[in-house]
Amino acid sequence: MLKTETEETVKSKSKLSVADLDFKKQSGLLPVIAQDEHTGAVLMLAYANLEAVKKTQESGFAHYWSRSRKALWKKGENSGHLQKIVEVLVDCDGDTVLYKVKQSGAACHTGATSCFFRKLPNNTKVK
Amino acid sequence: MLKTETEETVKSKSKLSVADLDFKKQSGLLPVIAQDEHTGAVLMLAYANLEAVKKTQESGFAHYWSRSRKALWKKGENSGHLQKIVEVLVDCDGDTVLYKVKQSGAACHTGATSCFFRKLPNNTKVK
Repeated sequence: MLKTETEETVKSKSKLSVADLDFKKQSGLLPVIAQDEHTGAVLMLAYANLEAVKKTQESGFAHYWSRSRKALWKKGENSGHLQKIVEVLVDCDGDTVLYKVKQSGAACHTGATSCFFRKLPNNTKVK
Repeated sequence: MLKTETEETVKSKSKLSVADLDFKKQSGLLPVIAQDEHTGAVLMLAYANLEAVKKTQESGFAHYWSRSRKALWKKGENSGHLQKIVEVLVDCDGDTVLYKVKQSGAACHTGATSCFFRKLPNNTKVK
């Protein structure tokens, strides 16, 4: 039987904690999807370690782990393009996180609303 | 100046190919977000290698690479919960893919509409 997201969310609200997140699969990092809670647009994907998830919960603003800079990263700290957290969701097997956010300004460093602005044409044939 | 997603998408339509995808960062795999094109719900996150992306383009149905089974995986091949591709988008730095899909049945193996049905309570304080 299909369950609605709301039923499942309510049901599991009291159970889940950061201890349930599975950071082992990717050396201490989880992929995090940021979604605009108003438009539904998928804005970006970045990574978080345990500290980044905790900082996100504590501050109410999206934090990530920068793989290139090897540092905790508060999104928008320099640009002002902050992501205010509406809710933090976790997938069924605890290895991916979804931040639902109120995005200030552009999510993408290119100035685009979302990082996903390029379409892959459907023209590649596999032999 | 902010650019709209539509302008950017149209602009880049003729340029992008699978050769532009950056499979190096994660040993030949890219994270792929599947989003319901109708409701906007983020359904799941899985991984794809080059072959999976090509199969997706060729067949019009979402394919992934199963990290646990180490095998190409057509979503819904056994369950019937197929994901018909509406469009394939690529992020600004070419290391994440977004499949916009028409989902048949439940996306999650638990029977939930989306894998993201668990909410992380905002109650963890960092010392």
